[in-house]
Amino acid sequence: MNIKAFQDYYPDHLSHCYGCGSLNEHGYQIKTVWDGDETVTTFTPQPYHTAVPGFVYGGLIASLIDCHGTGSAAAAMYKQENREMDTEPSFRFLTGSLNVKYVKPTPIDCTLEIRGKIKEISGKKVTVDVEVFANGVVTATGEVITIQVPDKYIKEIIKNAAKK
Amino acid sequence: MNIKAFQDYYPDHLSHCYGCGSLNEHGYQIKTVWDGDETVTTFTPQPYHTAVPGFVYGGLIASLIDCHGTGSAAAAMYKQENREMDTEPSFRFLTGSLNVKYVKPTPIDCTLEIRGKIKEISGKKVTVDVEVFANGVVTATGEVITIQVPDKYIKEIIKNAAKK
Repeated sequence: MNIKAFQDYYPDHLSHCYGCGSLNEHGYQIKTVWDGDETVTTFTPQPYHTAVPGFVYGGLIASLIDCHGTGSAAAAMYKQENREMDTEPSFRFLTGSLNVKYVKPTPIDCTLEIRGKIKEISGKKVTVDVEVFANGVVTATGEVITIQVPDKYIKEIIKNAAKK
Repeated sequence: MNIKAFQDYYPDHLSHCYGCGSLNEHGYQIKTVWDGDETVTTFTPQPYHTAVPGFVYGGLIASLIDCHGTGSAAAAMYKQENREMDTEPSFRFLTGSLNVKYVKPTPIDCTLEIRGKIKEISGKKVTVDVEVFANGVVTATGEVITIQVPDKYIKEIIKNAAKK
């Protein structure tokens, strides 16, 4: 059975993110799914995603935590309402703040596992705690505070940006 | 007069970072310089560095703040000792934690200016406050806590990673 990832439910206008958009051919195209009450993304860095030779650069780790967080937030809100992710009204989340702690160097020659726990849902704010594992060891942790933005508003800002 | 950027002083083994390494042909190759007591990096996003069409994705902003922070930390430590950046013993900084606040959407069709202030130098820890400007408006702020790591130790971990 193929499990559909959170990102596979995003409409086209929200599928251009460099981190998680399936229509961004240059980007990471991460895919996130539920694993019980936790959310999971796996990602294999490219050889050039280095900080120093042999280790992953921190910006990639921050990017993975960020997009894992916004995807998890949307999924959590749908789950709370007991609704499928392709039903209306849609839940879209942007990052308000991103806090990353680099616990130890992250080796580049393995597939990373990014795991999220929904820490809090409070009104339009969802906080996600994230851990990054390399070879089963936590190398970074993060907290992503996401804010729900009506899809209508997002469509509006995209339209205005295109007009310029 | 050409001003040499902080990153132009990095030795080869520290010039492979995806964010700031001049030898990483796939990466951002950011360059940071002093402007009075502040540090400045400018960066023009590619059209595909999108969050949603028209706006920069948060992972790039986090990456720029991160590498701007570590570069600024090294420069600040040399400045404190009144030494040139290519003199020994060398100062190398890794990110301990990265906190980013996304104040508003960052338009993608302009050159971003990333400005840093050295908030604190305390032993081997340097904290840098960072602001990201798009068209003169702050769209994100960050705090980067960096830790000094002896160059000898960095060479050692690179050597060990290569052996595996």
